[in-house]
Amino acid sequence: MVPSKLQRVISLLSRLPGVGEKTAQRYVLHLLTSDPTIARDLGAELSTLHQHLRPCESCGNLAELAHPDDTAECAICADTKRDSTVLCVVARVHDLLAIERAGTMRGRYFVMGKLLSPLDGVGPEDLPLGRLARRIQQDAVTELIVATPPSVDGEATALLLKRELGPLGIRVTRIASGVPHGGDLEFADPITMGRALSGRQQI
Amino acid sequence: MVPSKLQRVISLLSRLPGVGEKTAQRYVLHLLTSDPTIARDLGAELSTLHQHLRPCESCGNLAELAHPDDTAECAICADTKRDSTVLCVVARVHDLLAIERAGTMRGRYFVMGKLLSPLDGVGPEDLPLGRLARRIQQDAVTELIVATPPSVDGEATALLLKRELGPLGIRVTRIASGVPHGGDLEFADPITMGRALSGRQQI
Repeated sequence: MVPSKLQRVISLLSRLPGVGEKTAQRYVLHLLTSDPTIARDLGAELSTLHQHLRPCESCGNLAELAHPDDTAECAICADTKRDSTVLCVVARVHDLLAIERAGTMRGRYFVMGKLLSPLDGVGPEDLPLGRLARRIQQDAVTELIVATPPSVDGEATALLLKRELGPLGIRVTRIASGVPHGGDLEFADPITMGRALSGRQQI
Repeated sequence: MVPSKLQRVISLLSRLPGVGEKTAQRYVLHLLTSDPTIARDLGAELSTLHQHLRPCESCGNLAELAHPDDTAECAICADTKRDSTVLCVVARVHDLLAIERAGTMRGRYFVMGKLLSPLDGVGPEDLPLGRLARRIQQDAVTELIVATPPSVDGEATALLLKRELGPLGIRVTRIASGVPHGGDLEFADPITMGRALSGRQQI
């Protein structure tokens, strides 16, 4: 007795991460009881999502394309005021956006797309190390900031990058791991606390 | 440095209930890294959402329209095998769908759209009581099942319906409230437990 269109929209929305049938139903019913322009605008934007947003060809960040046939170059790679000698390696676009929100990275980025993960069958040969090395040489990079997450896979990837790209004569640095701003020492887990201690700096 | 199209999609998705900027961003980035047909299909469905799904003119349930100019009649009102003498009053379409999932209601529905709520300024004159009374007389309804939620507003609405529509000579019943199936008595709140006791039935 559920209208088939409702069922179709629900099953498409359920493909989103963390969204089940009930949440999807709540979303659709909310759209149906809201201003129709919201559903229409959202529909129009999603229909052309992949045509106008594509990975940047040099760094993997999202690039906005006025025409689907344009070359995909992101705003950061196109920005000549960015310091091209500092390159920040991240796993995903999400991480890049989080770093940009901090507003202090003046260099450029390289999105790997994945992390070294032997358990999931991702080995060094699956990472875009060749492309990264070429980018480093092209831009005469002097510092490579490794901003992979402080997880097992993220640390393994950081060590691999140091081993493979260190010989190119660049400084390979790692973002700090420790107690987050506003965090309570009492609730920090032992590994985070250990890192906060071992990564201490003179004040 | 966030592409403007990404920003637009994020702000539209943030209009969904319980979705903030970060969740919206996760949704878009997930769509961008998934099969492009998902975003395209979802976009197409949402663009025409309000054209093909509209409140049923007799009960307020969602009706699917093949053409936007058709009369909105839902599948339940159109189903001649439904018992038209039993009418179930619900607050929202969400509630109707939940009752339909149980699969035991053989009558028809009436979606009120809102509940009596003096605190939010919703009085008896804001409820579609006239339309409901006409529907009862038209369909020769003998039982009105009040399936408003067991909240303060839901109970107040149920009492109002009994007072206003009882004089029409119909049976007005209320869905049971008590400990849910699989629920633990230990964790039932005092009001639920009180209702489970007062609503006890002979076995």
